Amino acid sequence: MPKDDFKFKHSLRVRWGECDAQRIVFNAQYVNYIEVAQAEYFRNIGISHYSDEVRARFDLATVKATLEFLAPVRIDNMLDVYTRVSRIGNSSVTFITEMYIQGKDAPCNRAEAIYANFDAATGVPRRVPDDIREAVRQFEGWQY
Amino acid sequence: MPKDDFKFKHSLRVRWGECDAQRIVFNAQYVNYIEVAQAEYFRNIGISHYSDEVRARFDLATVKATLEFLAPVRIDNMLDVYTRVSRIGNSSVTFITEMYIQGKDAPCNRAEAIYANFDAATGVPRRVPDDIREAVRQFEGWQY
Amino acid sequence: MPKDDFKFKHSLRVRWGECDAQRIVFNAQYVNYIEVAQAEYFRNIGISHYSDEVRARFDLATVKATLEFLAPVRIDNMLDVYTRVSRIGNSSVTFITEMYIQGKDAPCNRAEAIYANFDAATGVPRRVPDDIREAVRQFEGWQY
Amino acid sequence: MPKDDFKFKHSLRVRWGECDAQRIVFNAQYVNYIEVAQAEYFRNIGISHYSDEVRARFDLATVKATLEFLAPVRIDNMLDVYTRVSRIGNSSVTFITEMYIQGKDAPCNRAEAIYANFDAATGVPRRVPDDIREAVRQFEGWQY
Repeated sequence: MPKDDFKFKHSLRVRWGECDAQRIVFNAQYVNYIEVAQAEYFRNIGISHYSDEVRARFDLATVKATLEFLAPVRIDNMLDVYTRVSRIGNSSVTFITEMYIQGKDAPCNRAEAIYANFDAATGVPRRVPDDIREAVRQFEGWQY
Repeated sequence: MPKDDFKFKHSLRVRWGECDAQRIVFNAQYVNYIEVAQAEYFRNIGISHYSDEVRARFDLATVKATLEFLAPVRIDNMLDVYTRVSRIGNSSVTFITEMYIQGKDAPCNRAEAIYANFDAATGVPRRVPDDIREAVRQFEGWQY
Repeated sequence: MPKDDFKFKHSLRVRWGECDAQRIVFNAQYVNYIEVAQAEYFRNIGISHYSDEVRARFDLATVKATLEFLAPVRIDNMLDVYTRVSRIGNSSVTFITEMYIQGKDAPCNRAEAIYANFDAATGVPRRVPDDIREAVRQFEGWQY
Repeated sequence: MPKDDFKFKHSLRVRWGECDAQRIVFNAQYVNYIEVAQAEYFRNIGISHYSDEVRARFDLATVKATLEFLAPVRIDNMLDVYTRVSRIGNSSVTFITEMYIQGKDAPCNRAEAIYANFDAATGVPRRVPDDIREAVRQFEGWQY
């Protein structure tokens, strides 16, 4: 089952203000959910993603995002947002995210998002720091 | 007529993503419209509100906002957002805003918002710069 | 202490996308937090605020909101959002909300919001249903 | 030049509340811009996309969106959002969108979004109405 591919999930409840006149989650909002789950993913492995200390050396800009909208999500639904790092390149980090309405077996949203670690002062990409690579590798159980 | 109390308006069209499941503008969104109109107000009198140069000496934090929701506003409605500075204190600036669906005589929203000019580095309030006072005074036609 | 005035709080973590270029929560976002806490308040007393069954007879439109911004709130801060119903009129419901950064004794935001129960089909205000009055009265411990 | 591939653009100014703590447009916001431009595209060819009359027979749900973030966009930037329909299938409509900071030759964002026309009451996809196909075909200058 796809959920087993993930070692981390973050659960959240869909808010009124996140839904549109179709009474379902507005499509832009999924990108927000991806970011929320990603912050919690890093927190879970001991990286304070938004701290000045971390951002001085690891600050992510989105490069590409692909989202598949598989089923509508409604106000008050509880969402399980599963996320994992699928790849770390030199400066890039790729996240795969799947969202499930609690109690459902099929995902309502699936996304791949590629980020680059860059220096906010210069705008130049830079290598993902080794301690962050190592923390992700250990958490995901990668052998290499 | 109240519209005559204002020397400035900014018009905008209500976006799909700004409306909620009642198919009307989500209440939090009005605060955003106030900010948009305020930025255009300053631009109109020659102050580039979001530039680093201006923010280094004139950076506003909201202190208090009072909003009256007088009529629902729907997707695709064109809104005329009238705004004016009603008072400048030592460090404070007060804006009055009224919003009208185009073609209507009665406002759909009325707001008063009080801001403080503060130093972002220290968090300490500071005097509104004289050139900004003067630009507002001339535009609003205040005698003093 | 003010926190003792409240029988309900909802805790949430400030999201990246809720903060602005001052690196603090964007002021419009507080209205969203008020709504989130209100939904949880009703859920806590057994009222499924967003269900079709409830909205057919109890659907709130914001009439007036007054917000005081007392201290900046930053990304990743945990917020305790305390909320209570302070008054139910014929068709009106008034909520008082105070927000605290966890661990702080002074609130960062204080708000009063007045809502009207209205019929979405006609736009006409209608009496707050008796079962909802009673549920709130019991929870808040009002004598009358 | 890529801009020449488009017969329609919608211009908008980046709002304060759309930017994040990196002082650039928050990535979720681009999906909102795509939707805004799409509504204006339909308006431009005479289709009132959000009206009840149109939505009763042409109501789009996002199926898949792919976004490339090519350059940061800052507060107050004027954005030209170019958009076109690249394909209409049986029930699907595909939009290509490119965004340019005014005065720049290279896009800051490129997106493809695939939508399905569906019946909101039943959730079932349905054929894109012939008058809408024809209006798009004529506007885009498709031969077939």
